[in-house]
Amino acid sequence: MISFDEAFDKVMQHTQDWGIETVDLLESTGRVLAEPVLADRDFPPFDRSTRDGIAINFTAIEKGRSTFPIEGVLSAGMPQKTLSSSEFCCEIMTGAVVPQNADTVIMYEQTTLENGNAIVKSIPKKGQNIHKKGSDASTGTVLLQPDRRITAAEIGVLATVGKSSVSVKKLPKVCVISTGNELVDVSEIPLPHQIRKSNTLSLHAALSKECIVPELLHLADDKKVIQDSITKVLQENDVILLSGGVSKGKFDFIPEVMESLGVKKIFHRVAQRPGKPFWFGVQKEHNTQVFSFPGNPVSTFANYHVYFVPWLYRCLGLNYPKKEVILDQVVLNDLPLTRFVQVKTYLEKGKLFAKPIEDGGSGDLASLSKSDGFVCLRPRQQKYKKGELVSYIPA
Amino acid sequence: MISFDEAFDKVMQHTQDWGIETVDLLESTGRVLAEPVLADRDFPPFDRSTRDGIAINFTAIEKGRSTFPIEGVLSAGMPQKTLSSSEFCCEIMTGAVVPQNADTVIMYEQTTLENGNAIVKSIPKKGQNIHKKGSDASTGTVLLQPDRRITAAEIGVLATVGKSSVSVKKLPKVCVISTGNELVDVSEIPLPHQIRKSNTLSLHAALSKECIVPELLHLADDKKVIQDSITKVLQENDVILLSGGVSKGKFDFIPEVMESLGVKKIFHRVAQRPGKPFWFGVQKEHNTQVFSFPGNPVSTFANYHVYFVPWLYRCLGLNYPKKEVILDQVVLNDLPLTRFVQVKTYLEKGKLFAKPIEDGGSGDLASLSKSDGFVCLRPRQQKYKKGELVSYIPA
Repeated sequence: MISFDEAFDKVMQHTQDWGIETVDLLESTGRVLAEPVLADRDFPPFDRSTRDGIAINFTAIEKGRSTFPIEGVLSAGMPQKTLSSSEFCCEIMTGAVVPQNADTVIMYEQTTLENGNAIVKSIPKKGQNIHKKGSDASTGTVLLQPDRRITAAEIGVLATVGKSSVSVKKLPKVCVISTGNELVDVSEIPLPHQIRKSNTLSLHAALSKECIVPELLHLADDKKVIQDSITKVLQENDVILLSGGVSKGKFDFIPEVMESLGVKKIFHRVAQRPGKPFWFGVQKEHNTQVFSFPGNPVSTFANYHVYFVPWLYRCLGLNYPKKEVILDQVVLNDLPLTRFVQVKTYLEKGKLFAKPIEDGGSGDLASLSKSDGFVCLRPRQQKYKKGELVSYIPA
Repeated sequence: MISFDEAFDKVMQHTQDWGIETVDLLESTGRVLAEPVLADRDFPPFDRSTRDGIAINFTAIEKGRSTFPIEGVLSAGMPQKTLSSSEFCCEIMTGAVVPQNADTVIMYEQTTLENGNAIVKSIPKKGQNIHKKGSDASTGTVLLQPDRRITAAEIGVLATVGKSSVSVKKLPKVCVISTGNELVDVSEIPLPHQIRKSNTLSLHAALSKECIVPELLHLADDKKVIQDSITKVLQENDVILLSGGVSKGKFDFIPEVMESLGVKKIFHRVAQRPGKPFWFGVQKEHNTQVFSFPGNPVSTFANYHVYFVPWLYRCLGLNYPKKEVILDQVVLNDLPLTRFVQVKTYLEKGKLFAKPIEDGGSGDLASLSKSDGFVCLRPRQQKYKKGELVSYIPA
């Protein structure tokens, strides 16, 4: 049995790179950007009016002029015009190109329009109300660095520079497998000694946050069945997430079968609760990673968030931020195990607190719906104090 | 022009209810639960072993017995057996039903198995290593209340109680419309006076977080075109999100067209920056809400998160949590406008700080990709101090 820190480091040392692919812009939401995104032109691409009003040449104001004959109306989407002389003005709308020979925009509210003239009511500042060409970014500027999650803001930038398709990191092919003869389908009425599958569906939902749609599979506790199925699964997937079959029970065939199929055990059993019997291995030939979690719902859920998510982030080049939150009550962990305690966090006056959630042990699935993550408490003799900073893993 | 608080209240007063619908379990991730979820049986449904080891009757220990003939092996998925007498034991695996006439499980590590007998090495506690029937929840207990977002944890609970289909809140049909003659498609090369559409695509991505797939539409700045299209859109949608066409420009036809089509203006123009020309209206006949945002990317993005998201949450019965964060530098807002300042938040020693992001005004889209939300600063003469708590709107 190894410590949590050792186990975590070992998982992190076995990253994969699934390459890149090109997807349509609207399909790229939630994916990880794999290319730098450059300004294809200046932004704004022209001197752009930021108000509805009139465009003038400031030298006229300097000469004391306040009445300007209007020689046209410019709206967004019209090609650039030229002010015929500094004695004239154009009406101009927000987003329109400021005409050549003009350098200042005065909003309607500060003018009076009469008989084809605009009368300026107060002296403007030279250059006001113009968003200058290239002032946000000049052509070639890097607007987005790669290795970031594409959200609505990035979609806006990508659209602006004409990326109708985007280079993103490929995602792993994932197979989620449950084992255990006690498990029946969700739609079935279980016999008294049976329970319904829930872990694979829960993992399916968790993976959807990462834009991954896994294959779901269930295997009976039969060595031959497991062996045949996993042979195929290993060839067709980059990652296998298993729940169940890794304890010390007589029907826990997973470690044995994995090793017989050339999946090298990196470790089995971690000094942690929940999730101690976690088995982690790598099949070199297809470079398939096997995360084999114990079958209890809380164990699977904790291990998925503690190990798999940070590992996936690292594989994709994403930063997995370390988070520290404030314990809102005393917790003792004097066992020689790292504990992952379910908590509900809440923000109060700018401080992020974590309230431990009562749970009925690692089989108590309903408790997960009351929490939003785990705090990680390494073993120690002193109690973890109320108000103490502890590391937090969102789930 | 009304204040931000007044505008926000008015939007919140015009909620809708789109009813409920039933979807497949795996399709329900991210949706809002519309029914209470009850335990359909006791959880666990039987006295369940939490260890691999042997099951015994504790009275034998009390009588001084330490050697137990093994009369079978029980694994998860096997119907309940009965221990033939308190002098015997069964091997039992994690997840298996504890046999009748047994009440204690001793893990293998604390036994020695020899010649068909298990020898207990130390005295166990009565009842240990058994997850008692009904201890998590008894039949009929409410496991999940409605009006909550379905995440991976809820999927696990729903699966466990056999909900292969789930009652969820219906989502609104949303049409996202851009206006402006200067806009061309993402795949086009814009002429010098043109720019590419970005707001509708950005809103499309933002709505995907709410599981909403909107219809996208672009309208030229032509009153007749706008009128005809919007007539149809009003009939077919619950919500219209518009960007552009609500300023004071000569081609900003939206307010006029909306009112001509029976969309009652609730307000136009809010004392805020960015996003001042926001127009909000309701068409009673089809109960369609119209959020008409100014066309600048930052204005549209801010108004979407400041008004639309909390409004959607309220319509769906979700709690929209108020969040306060700590400003990490001085900000002045002595204008008579509520400001929404782009910020990047970071967690440091359990405290959530907000760092204002430099931006080049409301046209600067790239700045949005550097921020993760807005802080809301109401007008006041004193500066907002470093370390001061301010309200935060995630984006």
